[in-house]
Amino acid sequence: MVCRTRKQERSVRTRTALIRSAAERFERHGYERTKLSEVSEGAGVTTGALHFHFRSKADLAEAVEHAAIRNLYRAARRTRCDRTDALAELAAISYSLAHLLHRDVVSRAGFRLNYETSGRTRLSIHQEWQSCVQRLLVQAGEEEGARLGALPLCELADTVVGATTGFALLARDNRAWLSPKVLTGFWRAVLPDCALESNGGGDC
Amino acid sequence: MVCRTRKQERSVRTRTALIRSAAERFERHGYERTKLSEVSEGAGVTTGALHFHFRSKADLAEAVEHAAIRNLYRAARRTRCDRTDALAELAAISYSLAHLLHRDVVSRAGFRLNYETSGRTRLSIHQEWQSCVQRLLVQAGEEEGARLGALPLCELADTVVGATTGFALLARDNRAWLSPKVLTGFWRAVLPDCALESNGGGDC
Repeated sequence: MVCRTRKQERSVRTRTALIRSAAERFERHGYERTKLSEVSEGAGVTTGALHFHFRSKADLAEAVEHAAIRNLYRAARRTRCDRTDALAELAAISYSLAHLLHRDVVSRAGFRLNYETSGRTRLSIHQEWQSCVQRLLVQAGEEEGARLGALPLCELADTVVGATTGFALLARDNRAWLSPKVLTGFWRAVLPDCALESNGGGDC
Repeated sequence: MVCRTRKQERSVRTRTALIRSAAERFERHGYERTKLSEVSEGAGVTTGALHFHFRSKADLAEAVEHAAIRNLYRAARRTRCDRTDALAELAAISYSLAHLLHRDVVSRAGFRLNYETSGRTRLSIHQEWQSCVQRLLVQAGEEEGARLGALPLCELADTVVGATTGFALLARDNRAWLSPKVLTGFWRAVLPDCALESNGGGDC
């Protein structure tokens, strides 16, 4: 029984290493140019071991996407804390997701794969983000209309979704696009009357 | 001689039709899933004719990228007019490029290919756009610092580049992201004291 558990643990470790290695290569060379032999080499396993866990490159890409979705949801959920202010919650989630995408290559690669190839997984990350932004801005509008200024909420939501998605996709070339500095600049530009600063980049 | 010219004209028409057909398929299915047989069928030519013009799918993608770069530069140049106000020029160029990307599938597909696969062409469209935004905002800062508000120019530039790139990339699922309404909302959100409205979406 002990033996079997160790085997299972090793299997989970190998699978995790393969997902990470694939994510690194997808980010560096793009999905199309990534070779499975390089993925297995990066994870320190044989191509046979890779094929034991994943049937194909598409299968690996799906696993990277699912891991990214899980990580992003977890980070967003953890950022709720005891905030009752919807605007502060929205900003905190944006900092938390940017921080995760900045430091974790699996989340970054999964986000990009999800955007570039729609339909591999059922869930569209940027559409989920759009729903989250719209919901929190409507709530913020009810709480404190004046601070949001004269701009209609739907236009503000489009600006927030467009800019944050743009930052995440531009980060492929330069991760500084996901730094707290860029995000703070953005929040100051669109909502100058609210102090929506980073709380250090991580969870609250 | 006449005969030769007609032949040349036909050749140019076939090449243009192949580039358009490839762009349509790259946008609909992604580069990876696009089949050359579908591209030639969409252009109404044989696969032999396709291979006469393009050696490979990568070669076709490069042609789509080059056509997009040409179209985007031409649209930006035409939008200069007699404007002396750098901020108005920047907004007008943003409307003009969004209008082109909205209506022209070759420009849209080429922009996305250029973003997704860096290194196929020497030029990075979003980096060129970033330089253009930075240059015009510095000029605007010298002309009329007060209207730009208290935000440092580099942060304003990041916000403009991030959001507009985000709109162009999100338009893959929904072209409404490139509508004048979204762009007008964005300019009103970041520069509420300037009336940076669309002049109809096209050239000025």
